[in-house]
Amino acid sequence: MSEQNALDRLSTLLSKLPGIGKKTAVRLVYHILDTNPSYARTLAAELNGLHEAIRRCSQCGSFTETNPCPVCEDQSRDRSLLCVVERPQDVRIIDESREYRGVFHVLGGLIAPLEGVGPGDLSIAQLLDRIRKEGIKEIILALNPTIEGDTTALYLQRILKDKLEASAPVITRLASGLPVGGDLEYADKLTLSRSFRGRVTL
Amino acid sequence: MSEQNALDRLSTLLSKLPGIGKKTAVRLVYHILDTNPSYARTLAAELNGLHEAIRRCSQCGSFTETNPCPVCEDQSRDRSLLCVVERPQDVRIIDESREYRGVFHVLGGLIAPLEGVGPGDLSIAQLLDRIRKEGIKEIILALNPTIEGDTTALYLQRILKDKLEASAPVITRLASGLPVGGDLEYADKLTLSRSFRGRVTL
Repeated sequence: MSEQNALDRLSTLLSKLPGIGKKTAVRLVYHILDTNPSYARTLAAELNGLHEAIRRCSQCGSFTETNPCPVCEDQSRDRSLLCVVERPQDVRIIDESREYRGVFHVLGGLIAPLEGVGPGDLSIAQLLDRIRKEGIKEIILALNPTIEGDTTALYLQRILKDKLEASAPVITRLASGLPVGGDLEYADKLTLSRSFRGRVTL
Repeated sequence: MSEQNALDRLSTLLSKLPGIGKKTAVRLVYHILDTNPSYARTLAAELNGLHEAIRRCSQCGSFTETNPCPVCEDQSRDRSLLCVVERPQDVRIIDESREYRGVFHVLGGLIAPLEGVGPGDLSIAQLLDRIRKEGIKEIILALNPTIEGDTTALYLQRILKDKLEASAPVITRLASGLPVGGDLEYADKLTLSRSFRGRVTL
Protein backbone atom coordinates (compact mmCIF):
# COMPACT_ATOMS: atom_id res chain seq x y z
CA MET A 1 0.00 0.00 0.00
CA SER A 2 1.30 3.47 -0.85
CA GLU A 3 2.60 5.33 2.19
CA GLN A 4 0.90 8.67 1.65
CA ASN A 5 -2.69 8.18 0.61
CA ALA A 6 -5.62 10.11 2.13
CA LEU A 7 -6.02 7.44 4.81
CA ASP A 8 -2.41 7.74 5.99
CA ARG A 9 -2.44 11.53 5.87
CA LEU A 10 -5.57 11.74 8.03
CA SER A 11 -4.30 9.17 10.54
CA THR A 12 -0.96 11.00 10.80
CA LEU A 13 -2.82 14.24 11.57
CA LEU A 14 -5.06 12.58 14.14
CA SER A 15 -2.09 10.93 15.86
CA LYS A 16 -0.79 14.41 16.70
CA LEU A 17 -3.66 14.90 19.14
CA PRO A 18 -2.91 14.19 22.82
CA GLY A 19 -3.66 10.61 23.88
CA ILE A 20 -4.15 9.36 20.32
CA GLY A 21 -1.41 7.03 19.12
CA LYS A 22 -0.74 5.80 15.60
CA LYS A 23 -2.87 2.65 15.97
CA THR A 24 -5.82 4.51 17.50
CA ALA A 25 -5.61 7.11 14.73
CA VAL A 26 -5.81 4.41 12.04
CA ARG A 27 -8.76 2.83 13.86
CA LEU A 28 -10.53 6.21 13.95
CA VAL A 29 -10.01 6.74 10.20
CA TYR A 30 -11.47 3.31 9.40
CA HIS A 31 -14.38 4.11 11.68
CA ILE A 32 -14.97 7.42 9.88
CA LEU A 33 -14.80 5.63 6.52
CA ASP A 34 -17.45 3.18 7.72
CA THR A 35 -19.68 6.03 8.92
CA ASN A 36 -22.01 8.16 6.78
CA PRO A 37 -19.91 10.73 4.83
CA SER A 38 -22.04 13.52 6.33
CA TYR A 39 -20.31 12.92 9.68
CA ALA A 40 -16.84 13.61 8.21
CA ARG A 41 -18.18 16.72 6.42
CA THR A 42 -19.85 18.15 9.54
CA LEU A 43 -16.70 17.49 11.56
CA ALA A 44 -14.61 19.18 8.84
CA ALA A 45 -16.90 22.22 8.78
CA GLU A 46 -16.71 22.60 12.58
CA LEU A 47 -12.91 22.29 12.55
CA ASN A 48 -12.66 24.82 9.74
CA GLY A 49 -14.73 27.38 11.59
CA LEU A 50 -13.34 26.72 15.08
CA HIS A 51 -10.61 29.35 15.25
CA GLU A 52 -12.86 31.99 13.70
CA ALA A 53 -15.79 31.21 16.02
CA ILE A 54 -13.86 30.86 19.27
CA ARG A 55 -11.80 33.81 20.48
CA ARG A 56 -10.29 34.87 23.80
CA CYS A 57 -12.54 36.93 26.06
CA SER A 58 -10.94 40.37 26.42
CA GLN A 59 -11.91 40.44 30.10
CA CYS A 60 -11.15 37.01 31.59
CA GLY A 61 -9.08 35.43 28.80
CA SER A 62 -11.16 32.25 28.43
CA PHE A 63 -12.36 30.92 25.08
CA THR A 64 -15.69 32.34 23.91
CA GLU A 65 -17.86 32.97 20.87
CA THR A 66 -19.00 36.37 22.12
CA ASN A 67 -16.81 39.08 23.62
CA PRO A 68 -17.11 39.56 26.58
CA CYS A 69 -17.86 35.90 27.27
CA PRO A 70 -21.21 34.79 28.77
CA VAL A 71 -19.61 34.41 32.22
CA CYS A 72 -18.22 37.97 32.24
CA GLU A 73 -21.54 39.25 30.85
CA ASP A 74 -23.66 37.46 33.46
CA GLN A 75 -24.93 40.26 35.71
CA SER A 76 -26.12 37.83 38.38
CA ARG A 77 -22.52 36.90 39.27
CA ASP A 78 -20.70 38.22 42.31
CA ARG A 79 -18.17 40.64 40.82
CA SER A 80 -16.27 41.05 44.09
CA LEU A 81 -15.04 37.45 43.81
CA LEU A 82 -12.32 36.67 41.27
CA CYS A 83 -11.14 33.12 40.63
CA VAL A 84 -7.67 32.89 39.07
CA VAL A 85 -7.08 29.79 36.91
CA GLU A 86 -4.29 28.47 34.71
CA ARG A 87 -6.09 27.60 31.46
CA PRO A 88 -9.39 28.45 29.71
CA GLN A 89 -10.67 24.89 30.25
CA ASP A 90 -10.40 25.40 34.04
CA VAL A 91 -13.12 28.07 33.76
CA ARG A 92 -15.43 25.48 32.23
CA ILE A 93 -14.61 22.79 34.82
CA ILE A 94 -15.20 25.14 37.77
CA ASP A 95 -18.28 26.68 36.20
CA GLU A 96 -19.84 23.25 35.60
CA SER A 97 -19.42 22.35 39.28
CA ARG A 98 -21.92 25.19 40.05
CA GLU A 99 -20.10 25.78 43.35
CA TYR A 100 -18.68 29.15 42.37
CA ARG A 101 -20.69 32.20 41.25
CA GLY A 102 -18.00 34.88 40.90
CA VAL A 103 -15.96 35.85 37.84
CA PHE A 104 -12.72 34.41 36.43
CA HIS A 105 -9.25 35.38 35.31
CA VAL A 106 -7.17 33.07 33.07
CA LEU A 107 -3.40 33.36 33.67
CA GLY A 108 -2.52 31.49 30.49
CA GLY A 109 0.00 29.22 32.23
CA LEU A 110 1.96 28.65 35.43
CA ILE A 111 5.43 29.85 36.37
CA ALA A 112 7.80 27.05 35.32
CA PRO A 113 11.44 28.20 35.11
CA LEU A 114 12.58 24.84 33.72
CA GLU A 115 10.22 25.24 30.78
CA GLY A 116 11.16 28.90 30.36
CA VAL A 117 7.81 30.26 31.54
CA GLY A 118 8.29 33.34 33.74
CA PRO A 119 5.79 35.75 35.34
CA GLY A 120 6.08 37.98 32.24
CA ASP A 121 4.45 35.26 30.12
CA LEU A 122 1.28 35.25 32.24
CA SER A 123 -1.52 37.82 32.28
CA ILE A 124 -0.50 39.20 35.68
CA ALA A 125 -0.46 42.87 34.63
CA GLN A 126 -4.08 42.53 33.43
CA LEU A 127 -4.95 40.82 36.72
CA LEU A 128 -3.57 43.76 38.76
CA ASP A 129 -5.42 46.13 36.48
CA ARG A 130 -8.70 44.32 37.01
CA ILE A 131 -8.26 44.23 40.79
CA ARG A 132 -7.66 48.00 40.83
CA LYS A 133 -10.65 48.80 38.62
CA GLU A 134 -13.30 46.23 39.47
CA GLY A 135 -13.46 46.49 43.27
CA ILE A 136 -12.55 42.87 43.89
CA LYS A 137 -12.66 41.78 47.55
CA GLU A 138 -11.40 38.22 47.30
CA ILE A 139 -8.99 36.47 44.92
CA ILE A 140 -9.38 32.68 44.87
CA LEU A 141 -6.30 30.98 43.44
CA ALA A 142 -7.65 27.82 41.76
CA LEU A 143 -4.28 26.56 40.54
CA ASN A 144 -3.27 22.89 40.38
CA PRO A 145 -1.65 21.63 43.61
CA THR A 146 1.68 21.02 41.82
CA ILE A 147 5.14 22.60 42.17
CA GLU A 148 4.33 25.05 39.36
CA GLY A 149 0.91 25.84 40.87
CA ASP A 150 2.44 26.43 44.31
CA THR A 151 5.23 28.64 42.87
CA THR A 152 2.72 30.72 40.94
CA ALA A 153 0.42 31.05 43.97
CA LEU A 154 3.34 32.22 46.12
CA TYR A 155 4.45 34.71 43.47
CA LEU A 156 0.94 36.12 43.03
CA GLN A 157 0.49 36.47 46.79
CA ARG A 158 3.70 38.51 47.05
CA ILE A 159 3.13 40.68 43.99
CA LEU A 160 -0.46 41.48 44.96
CA LYS A 161 0.60 42.62 48.42
CA ASP A 162 3.53 44.63 47.00
CA LYS A 163 1.67 46.38 44.22
CA LEU A 164 -1.70 46.93 45.81
CA GLU A 165 -0.63 47.51 49.41
CA ALA A 166 -3.59 48.54 51.58
CA SER A 167 -6.15 47.98 48.80
CA ALA A 168 -5.07 44.35 48.34
CA PRO A 169 -8.00 41.93 48.38
CA VAL A 170 -8.10 38.78 50.52
CA ILE A 171 -6.19 35.98 48.78
CA THR A 172 -7.36 32.39 49.24
CA ARG A 173 -6.43 29.10 47.69
CA LEU A 174 -8.46 25.94 47.02
CA ALA A 175 -8.18 23.36 49.81
CA SER A 176 -5.79 20.53 49.14
CA GLY A 177 -6.36 17.11 50.71
CA LEU A 178 -7.96 13.72 50.23
CA PRO A 179 -10.28 13.48 47.23
CA VAL A 180 -13.88 12.63 48.13
CA GLY A 181 -14.45 8.90 47.72
CA GLY A 182 -10.70 8.30 47.94
CA ASP A 183 -8.93 5.87 50.24
CA LEU A 184 -6.24 6.72 52.81
CA GLU A 185 -4.35 3.65 51.61
CA TYR A 186 -3.86 5.13 48.17
CA ALA A 187 -3.15 8.75 49.19
CA ASP A 188 0.43 9.87 48.53
CA LYS A 189 2.50 11.33 51.37
CA LEU A 190 2.24 14.94 50.20
CA THR A 191 -1.54 14.84 49.88
CA LEU A 192 -1.79 13.21 53.30
CA SER A 193 0.50 15.81 54.87
CA ARG A 194 -1.54 18.63 53.29
CA SER A 195 -4.79 17.13 54.52
CA PHE A 196 -3.32 17.05 58.05
CA ARG A 197 -2.12 20.64 57.88
CA GLY A 198 -5.47 21.79 56.48
CA ARG A 199 -7.59 19.74 58.94
CA VAL A 200 -10.98 21.21 59.77
CA THR A 201 -12.61 21.55 63.23
CA LEU A 202 -15.95 19.75 63.33
CA MET B 1 -21.78 29.25 29.28
CA SER B 2 -24.16 28.69 26.38
CA GLU B 3 -24.72 25.01 25.68
CA GLN B 4 -24.28 25.01 21.93
CA ASN B 5 -21.32 27.10 20.90
CA ALA B 6 -18.69 25.95 18.37
CA LEU B 7 -16.66 24.37 21.15
CA ASP B 8 -19.55 22.22 22.36
CA ARG B 9 -20.60 21.27 18.85
CA LEU B 10 -17.09 20.07 17.96
CA SER B 11 -16.63 18.16 21.22
CA THR B 12 -20.03 16.47 20.77
CA LEU B 13 -18.98 15.37 17.27
CA LEU B 14 -15.60 14.08 18.47
CA SER B 15 -17.20 12.18 21.35
CA LYS B 16 -19.04 10.05 18.76
CA LEU B 17 -15.72 8.46 17.74
CA PRO B 18 -14.92 5.07 19.33
CA GLY B 19 -12.89 5.32 22.54
CA ILE B 20 -13.38 9.08 22.87
CA GLY B 21 -15.61 10.08 25.75
CA LYS B 22 -17.11 13.48 26.48
CA LYS B 23 -14.20 14.62 28.68
CA THR B 24 -11.53 13.51 26.21
CA ALA B 25 -13.41 15.25 23.40
CA VAL B 26 -13.45 18.55 25.32
CA ARG B 27 -9.73 18.15 26.05
CA LEU B 28 -9.05 17.59 22.34
CA VAL B 29 -10.99 20.72 21.37
CA TYR B 30 -9.02 22.86 23.86
CA HIS B 31 -5.82 21.34 22.51
CA ILE B 32 -6.84 22.19 18.93
CA LEU B 33 -7.70 25.75 20.03
CA ASP B 34 -4.23 26.08 21.56
CA THR B 35 -2.59 24.77 18.37
CA ASN B 36 -1.84 26.77 15.22
CA PRO B 37 -5.12 27.23 13.25
CA SER B 38 -3.45 25.65 10.20
CA TYR B 39 -3.65 22.27 11.98
CA ALA B 40 -7.45 22.48 12.30
CA ARG B 41 -7.74 23.60 8.67
CA THR B 42 -5.54 20.78 7.33
CA LEU B 43 -7.47 18.25 9.41
CA ALA B 44 -10.75 19.70 8.09
CA ALA B 45 -9.54 19.49 4.48
CA GLU B 46 -8.49 15.85 4.89
CA LEU B 47 -11.82 14.93 6.51
CA ASN B 48 -13.71 16.72 3.79
CA GLY B 49 -11.93 14.84 1.03
CA LEU B 50 -11.76 11.46 2.76
CA HIS B 51 -14.86 9.80 1.35
CA GLU B 52 -14.13 11.09 -2.16
CA ALA B 53 -10.49 9.97 -2.07
CA ILE B 54 -10.98 6.55 -0.48
CA ARG B 55 -13.22 4.04 -2.21
CA ARG B 56 -13.73 0.28 -2.07
CA CYS B 57 -11.49 -1.77 -4.36
CA SER B 58 -13.77 -3.51 -6.88
CA GLN B 59 -11.64 -6.67 -6.67
CA CYS B 60 -10.83 -7.28 -2.99
CA GLY B 61 -13.21 -4.82 -1.26
CA SER B 62 -10.58 -3.02 0.83
CA PHE B 63 -10.31 0.78 1.05
CA THR B 64 -8.15 2.36 -1.66
CA GLU B 65 -7.45 5.58 -3.55
CA THR B 66 -6.93 3.75 -6.87
CA ASN B 67 -9.15 1.03 -8.30
CA PRO B 68 -7.98 -1.75 -8.30
CA CYS B 69 -6.02 -1.16 -5.11
CA PRO B 70 -2.19 -1.32 -5.03
CA VAL B 71 -2.32 -4.81 -3.48
CA CYS B 72 -4.55 -6.22 -6.26
CA GLU B 73 -2.43 -4.40 -8.87
CA ASP B 74 0.87 -5.73 -7.53
CA GLN B 75 2.01 -8.25 -10.15
CA SER B 76 4.69 -9.70 -7.87
CA ARG B 77 2.07 -11.21 -5.57
CA ASP B 78 1.14 -14.88 -5.61
CA ARG B 79 -2.32 -14.88 -7.17
CA SER B 80 -2.98 -18.52 -6.31
CA LEU B 81 -3.17 -17.58 -2.62
CA LEU B 82 -6.30 -15.77 -1.39
CA CYS B 83 -6.57 -14.48 2.17
CA VAL B 84 -10.17 -13.94 3.35
CA VAL B 85 -10.59 -11.25 6.02
CA GLU B 86 -13.49 -9.61 7.84
CA ARG B 87 -12.77 -5.88 7.42
CA PRO B 88 -10.67 -3.60 5.17
CA GLN B 89 -8.34 -2.74 8.05
CA ASP B 90 -7.40 -6.43 8.37
CA VAL B 91 -5.80 -6.20 4.90
CA ARG B 92 -3.55 -3.42 6.19
CA ILE B 93 -2.63 -5.27 9.39
CA ILE B 94 -1.73 -8.49 7.55
CA ASP B 95 0.06 -6.63 4.76
CA GLU B 96 2.19 -4.68 7.24
CA SER B 97 3.36 -7.92 8.88
CA ARG B 98 5.06 -8.77 5.51
CA GLU B 99 4.43 -12.46 6.21
CA TYR B 100 1.89 -12.91 3.41
CA ARG B 101 2.45 -12.18 -0.27
CA GLY B 102 -0.82 -13.36 -1.82
CA VAL B 103 -4.00 -11.39 -2.54
CA PHE B 104 -6.99 -10.57 -0.32
CA HIS B 105 -10.76 -10.75 -0.16
CA VAL B 106 -12.76 -8.62 2.29
CA LEU B 107 -15.99 -10.28 3.48
CA GLY B 108 -17.38 -7.08 4.98
CA GLY B 109 -18.39 -8.70 8.26
CA LEU B 110 -18.88 -12.03 10.04
CA ILE B 111 -21.99 -14.18 10.34
CA ALA B 112 -23.68 -13.07 13.57
CA PRO B 113 -27.31 -14.22 13.79
CA LEU B 114 -27.89 -12.31 17.03
CA GLU B 115 -26.96 -9.06 15.30
CA GLY B 116 -28.96 -9.96 12.21
CA VAL B 117 -25.93 -10.53 9.96
CA GLY B 118 -26.45 -13.54 7.70
CA PRO B 119 -24.32 -15.02 4.89
CA GLY B 120 -26.24 -12.88 2.37
CA ASP B 121 -24.80 -9.70 3.92
CA LEU B 122 -21.23 -10.79 3.19
CA SER B 123 -19.43 -10.78 -0.17
CA ILE B 124 -19.52 -14.58 -0.46
CA ALA B 125 -20.94 -14.67 -4.02
CA GLN B 126 -18.04 -12.48 -5.20
CA LEU B 127 -15.63 -14.78 -3.37
CA LEU B 128 -16.96 -17.85 -5.20
CA ASP B 129 -16.75 -15.94 -8.46
CA ARG B 130 -13.12 -14.99 -7.85
CA ILE B 131 -12.18 -18.57 -6.94
CA ARG B 132 -13.75 -19.84 -10.17
CA LYS B 133 -12.07 -17.23 -12.37
CA GLU B 134 -8.70 -16.56 -10.79
CA GLY B 135 -7.28 -20.07 -10.44
CA ILE B 136 -6.90 -19.88 -6.68
CA LYS B 137 -5.19 -22.90 -5.08
CA GLU B 138 -5.42 -22.00 -1.41
CA ILE B 139 -7.90 -19.97 0.63
CA ILE B 140 -6.53 -18.75 3.96
CA LEU B 141 -9.30 -17.79 6.37
CA ALA B 142 -7.82 -14.99 8.50
CA LEU B 143 -10.91 -14.42 10.63
CA ASN B 144 -10.85 -13.52 14.32
CA PRO B 145 -10.82 -16.58 16.61
CA THR B 146 -14.25 -15.69 18.04
CA ILE B 147 -17.65 -17.39 17.88
CA GLU B 148 -18.59 -15.26 14.86
CA GLY B 149 -15.25 -15.95 13.18
CA ASP B 150 -15.57 -19.69 13.80
CA THR B 151 -19.17 -19.76 12.52
CA THR B 152 -18.19 -17.87 9.37
CA ALA B 153 -15.17 -20.13 8.77
CA LEU B 154 -17.34 -23.24 9.13
CA TYR B 155 -19.97 -21.80 6.78
CA LEU B 156 -17.38 -20.84 4.15
CA GLN B 157 -15.74 -24.26 4.34
CA ARG B 158 -19.08 -25.96 3.67
CA ILE B 159 -20.26 -23.63 0.92
CA LEU B 160 -16.93 -23.75 -0.93
CA LYS B 161 -16.97 -27.54 -0.96
CA ASP B 162 -20.64 -27.62 -2.03
CA LYS B 163 -20.44 -25.04 -4.80
CA LEU B 164 -17.02 -25.75 -6.22
CA GLU B 165 -16.89 -29.53 -5.74
CA ALA B 166 -13.76 -30.99 -7.34
CA SER B 167 -12.31 -27.59 -8.23
CA ALA B 168 -12.42 -26.42 -4.59
CA PRO B 169 -9.11 -24.97 -3.41
CA VAL B 170 -7.39 -26.03 -0.18
CA ILE B 171 -8.93 -24.13 2.75
CA THR B 172 -6.70 -23.23 5.70
CA ARG B 173 -7.18 -21.11 8.78
CA LEU B 174 -4.70 -19.06 10.83
CA ALA B 175 -3.26 -20.99 13.79
CA SER B 176 -4.84 -20.24 17.13
CA GLY B 177 -2.82 -20.57 20.34
CA LEU B 178 -0.61 -18.76 22.81
CA PRO B 179 0.48 -15.30 21.66
CA VAL B 180 4.27 -14.88 21.34
CA GLY B 181 5.65 -13.31 24.51
CA GLY B 182 2.53 -14.37 26.41
CA ASP B 183 2.43 -16.26 29.68
CA LEU B 184 0.72 -19.62 30.30
CA GLU B 185 -0.58 -18.18 33.57
CA TYR B 186 -2.64 -15.56 31.77
CA ALA B 187 -3.90 -17.72 28.89
CA ASP B 188 -7.64 -18.40 28.99
CA LYS B 189 -8.90 -22.01 28.90
CA LEU B 190 -10.07 -21.86 25.29
CA THR B 191 -6.77 -20.50 23.98
CA LEU B 192 -4.89 -23.13 25.99
CA SER B 193 -7.11 -25.92 24.69
CA ARG B 194 -6.62 -24.71 21.10
CA SER B 195 -2.87 -24.51 21.52
CA PHE B 196 -2.90 -28.15 22.73
CA ARG B 197 -5.03 -29.32 19.84
CA GLY B 198 -2.83 -27.46 17.36
CA ARG B 199 0.50 -28.54 18.91
CA VAL B 200 3.44 -28.77 16.53
CA THR B 201 6.03 -31.58 16.27
CA LEU B 202 9.56 -30.23 16.74
